[in-house]
Amino acid sequence: MTASDVPPAPTIHMAPPLSPAIRVTLMPKDTNSHGTIFGGVLLSYIDLAGAIATRGYCDRVVTIKMTEVVFHQPVFVGDIVSFYTEVTRIGKTSITVKVVVEAERWRGDRELTKVTEAEIVYVNVDADRKPTPIVRR
Amino acid sequence: MTASDVPPAPTIHMAPPLSPAIRVTLMPKDTNSHGTIFGGVLLSYIDLAGAIATRGYCDRVVTIKMTEVVFHQPVFVGDIVSFYTEVTRIGKTSITVKVVVEAERWRGDRELTKVTEAEIVYVNVDADRKPTPIVRR
Amino acid sequence: MTASDVPPAPTIHMAPPLSPAIRVTLMPKDTNSHGTIFGGVLLSYIDLAGAIATRGYCDRVVTIKMTEVVFHQPVFVGDIVSFYTEVTRIGKTSITVKVVVEAERWRGDRELTKVTEAEIVYVNVDADRKPTPIVRR
Amino acid sequence: MTASDVPPAPTIHMAPPLSPAIRVTLMPKDTNSHGTIFGGVLLSYIDLAGAIATRGYCDRVVTIKMTEVVFHQPVFVGDIVSFYTEVTRIGKTSITVKVVVEAERWRGDRELTKVTEAEIVYVNVDADRKPTPIVRR
Amino acid sequence: MTASDVPPAPTIHMAPPLSPAIRVTLMPKDTNSHGTIFGGVLLSYIDLAGAIATRGYCDRVVTIKMTEVVFHQPVFVGDIVSFYTEVTRIGKTSITVKVVVEAERWRGDRELTKVTEAEIVYVNVDADRKPTPIVRR
Amino acid sequence: MTASDVPPAPTIHMAPPLSPAIRVTLMPKDTNSHGTIFGGVLLSYIDLAGAIATRGYCDRVVTIKMTEVVFHQPVFVGDIVSFYTEVTRIGKTSITVKVVVEAERWRGDRELTKVTEAEIVYVNVDADRKPTPIVRR
Repeated sequence: MTASDVPPAPTIHMAPPLSPAIRVTLMPKDTNSHGTIFGGVLLSYIDLAGAIATRGYCDRVVTIKMTEVVFHQPVFVGDIVSFYTEVTRIGKTSITVKVVVEAERWRGDRELTKVTEAEIVYVNVDADRKPTPIVRR
Repeated sequence: MTASDVPPAPTIHMAPPLSPAIRVTLMPKDTNSHGTIFGGVLLSYIDLAGAIATRGYCDRVVTIKMTEVVFHQPVFVGDIVSFYTEVTRIGKTSITVKVVVEAERWRGDRELTKVTEAEIVYVNVDADRKPTPIVRR
Repeated sequence: MTASDVPPAPTIHMAPPLSPAIRVTLMPKDTNSHGTIFGGVLLSYIDLAGAIATRGYCDRVVTIKMTEVVFHQPVFVGDIVSFYTEVTRIGKTSITVKVVVEAERWRGDRELTKVTEAEIVYVNVDADRKPTPIVRR
Repeated sequence: MTASDVPPAPTIHMAPPLSPAIRVTLMPKDTNSHGTIFGGVLLSYIDLAGAIATRGYCDRVVTIKMTEVVFHQPVFVGDIVSFYTEVTRIGKTSITVKVVVEAERWRGDRELTKVTEAEIVYVNVDADRKPTPIVRR
Repeated sequence: MTASDVPPAPTIHMAPPLSPAIRVTLMPKDTNSHGTIFGGVLLSYIDLAGAIATRGYCDRVVTIKMTEVVFHQPVFVGDIVSFYTEVTRIGKTSITVKVVVEAERWRGDRELTKVTEAEIVYVNVDADRKPTPIVRR
Repeated sequence: MTASDVPPAPTIHMAPPLSPAIRVTLMPKDTNSHGTIFGGVLLSYIDLAGAIATRGYCDRVVTIKMTEVVFHQPVFVGDIVSFYTEVTRIGKTSITVKVVVEAERWRGDRELTKVTEAEIVYVNVDADRKPTPIVRR
């Protein structure tokens, strides 16, 4: 088999307006005492994914609120975990991002499962951490 | 100065019904790109603190929801960070825990600041991760 | 069941003069090759717990000695691990802290077990790491 | 500004046949003694990214060779780091993946820079780590 | 300059009976709030180094005591840190190891400094963690 | 048995011109989804080991290339993993280091196995990361 026989790469799954922000596979060090991926690890990536989504609008943000984080299904070691985002609201100094987390299971039929979702509010700040207006670019 | 001169130890700050669950000091490895403690690290401890609060009622829980996480103030390297909990609702298979996070600043007047608070819903599960009723002990 | 039915929170176990400094639950990433919690992880928290106890007397300390660290029992993933401290001696520039570590087992009868204890000597230093007298407040 | 005013999300940058595998932002804990992102951290993600690319062909792989890893530019804390892959050769039991790493700088003009690239050979193995033929699906 | 011009490699510094067990360079993630290497990190390597020294005599050990850990000097990011060991006593089921830690400074004259030393007692255990006699090989 | 009965310490295994740079034992947190040591962890130590070998010639280096990293055998939790180096070429501003990684298995006959090898090219840089000539000392 040569490179020209190589089938096309897998496509990105989530449709717009969701935009891919972070994608990782997780490891034994990321597990909790049940042997599944620790929720705190997912929350860390959710926070980072939402912050990536703000970069089209803000230079520097701090997280001020997470509303309605829902854990639908466990995530397992070896799953490919994708964090998709959508900016849902832009205020004077705040910006709200919806994050949807999808796992592609490692074993079996590799089904795609929405495992977690969250909504996060960030505030645009200056270098002194003072809230500062979001300027439309 | 001898041991008998040693002044009394500092008291636990939060009044009942809040109960201390976790208390740590955080390190440079826990920082974000702003140099303050990464929100994902705090969320990890919040999830663990809430789970500790469920142990009076449940043998094994999974996190299913965080209904409102608010970050009031940044946390800094060297702060003593205390996670207080209160069980606010016990359903048939679910249990809701409020977590309040307080930082004692390292430098200066060591003021106590409420830095974060959250409400988390856990579900009591059996060894196969199936929801199972919470039995009053 | 409503919030008003919620039974009282568990109490802090160790009697004065021991004072709670750190309390955590540990994770698979903290294990050693035997599958129990790695001693180095416990020693890290012991060092931090003792340093917390010095904050009533010192602004900045460095660890100079650990005398007699004893590991009585293994600690397991999921145990609630509490680090209690007592300041046992205050010298001109040094301060000695006893740290007692207690585990509340996750499974079974949740018995409380003294798992480790240690005595640590810290030196009060200035910003240039020079020893500096401990001033009685 | 309402959600309907929200401008379109940023697009995925690398053209086919390169396929996005991993995307992260890195943190202070990932730095080396120069203050830039540690090469070992990038190599870890490169290895994982290549392994993701093999999932269209293999159930389980082990890494056997990296044939040329080139570090073009440093990566900084806060950069968005994307790992793109292309399967370049499929042998009887081995599969070769090219990984291209692109950083979107956090500050300034957010230019896209190819920071690292590598070629990795994986072998398809069975549950006993024995090489096993790659079956065309 | 060709390979044949390459000067000889640096020698191992500590004289017998001290034996090299562990040697690492440490990273920003290993620092404490003072910016130097966290004592807990050094204690972790000390515990592992002593355990390596027991392998000539024991199949499986648990740490039961550290009898005197002395921190002489801080360790800095980038230092080459070597952990040397000497078995000082072999009892019926216990084995005592002295660990000496030496840092080669990264900057300046690269002087060698003894930074820490410790004595650790391990117990030889069977697969059920029961103490078991150390058999002379 | 007294200290005078203690048999001699194990010797360093690799013959010159290979020089020991790093030696560690690895932990559950270092594993991949197969339960063996993650290649990214080994690559991190390989990069650091090569950099140690450059210290006889350079004050500050950055990694620019890894050529031909070969993973011969898996590494397991508890193995003693030694990273040996040899400087194989010194150019005007670049220096090439061969790194050979040997594992001493924890269980069974403790055989020594060459598990990985790599060749890395570093560039000598000044404080501004500009390439600067390697001066023969």
